[in-house]
Amino acid sequence: MIFDKGNIVKVAVLASGRGSNFEALCNGDTGNGRISLLITDNEKAEVLRKASSAGVESIYMSPGRYRTKFGETEEMAWTRFLMDRGIELVCLAGLMRIIKGPMLEEYSGRIINIHPSLLPSFPGLHAQKQALDYGIRITGCTVHYVDAAVDTGPIILQKAVDVKDDDTVETLSCRILRQEYIAYSEAVKLICSGVLSGSGRNRFHKER
Amino acid sequence: MIFDKGNIVKVAVLASGRGSNFEALCNGDTGNGRISLLITDNEKAEVLRKASSAGVESIYMSPGRYRTKFGETEEMAWTRFLMDRGIELVCLAGLMRIIKGPMLEEYSGRIINIHPSLLPSFPGLHAQKQALDYGIRITGCTVHYVDAAVDTGPIILQKAVDVKDDDTVETLSCRILRQEYIAYSEAVKLICSGVLSGSGRNRFHKER
Repeated sequence: MIFDKGNIVKVAVLASGRGSNFEALCNGDTGNGRISLLITDNEKAEVLRKASSAGVESIYMSPGRYRTKFGETEEMAWTRFLMDRGIELVCLAGLMRIIKGPMLEEYSGRIINIHPSLLPSFPGLHAQKQALDYGIRITGCTVHYVDAAVDTGPIILQKAVDVKDDDTVETLSCRILRQEYIAYSEAVKLICSGVLSGSGRNRFHKER
Repeated sequence: MIFDKGNIVKVAVLASGRGSNFEALCNGDTGNGRISLLITDNEKAEVLRKASSAGVESIYMSPGRYRTKFGETEEMAWTRFLMDRGIELVCLAGLMRIIKGPMLEEYSGRIINIHPSLLPSFPGLHAQKQALDYGIRITGCTVHYVDAAVDTGPIILQKAVDVKDDDTVETLSCRILRQEYIAYSEAVKLICSGVLSGSGRNRFHKER
């Protein structure tokens, strides 16, 4: 159990884009989790406007000179900012960067991500297209803890979505996204309620 | 479309064990598919008794001297027997052998299998244990065409199954099995109704 039952948990969202999952987290039932901070690596991200209208503190911080990861100094700066604000749980919501360095150490087991497939199927980019190309009949979304590899961390929650015969990447992505909105809030609520164990692959494991 | 609409399709089941999926196929709504033949590689398989009480022709045939595949002569003999009986569709139902040789050539695109996971997650043996060890929250079953590799063929149908916090391999397997019973008959009905295309990974593909 990584959070005490009953305590309020300050949650930060890291995003790069339009922030529809951020918005869903703000509007959803996250239980003891309070969405308290948004950080983006994209000065022009629409999510900044959404944070402002939701009354959530938001900031652009430079990610450094790489395209798909943080510079080490910058990842340290993001991490310090999170800690200064008393953030206890970090939600990735369309952050187009891999987290590997100080943030993963400092927030080990307290960074979560949402992915548009039923992992371990279709990790990485373009999961919906991968699923359609495979000819899958059921896909969905997965909320999972972030570890040092891509989309391999322990699973918190999954939602299934049927594939329709005439689905395109767009129609399928849209249907999955509606489940993502529900799943992400539910997962934050679960984590912040203190019912999950803090180690192992199966955080719900009671006895087996 | 590999089967003409409206025509009766003679279906054989190949099984090694107790034959609960065979029984479900016999009792289920398989549309134009008629379960007409059971072949087993295990003289003592309980499925033989089930075939007899279901009034389905059944036969034990030697699989040859290997443990996980057929001898080439034997696979040829099985294939000839299927052809002699006018079998058009072959359902694997717990057959503990890989099909690689003449049967796969002769019945290319007309052999199907059911697997207790949402493929491509957890192919191969002990899929339910693999899923629990991974800490999955949703698993299920997949009916797919058989190709030369293991559990990689085009998908026909999938059913999702929630994992419960206190699931064991036994309780989860049992819950998946109930969906397998439904899925396998549905898949046979779909194939025999002639609505699926005969090539590519997505047999439902209309326009994308």
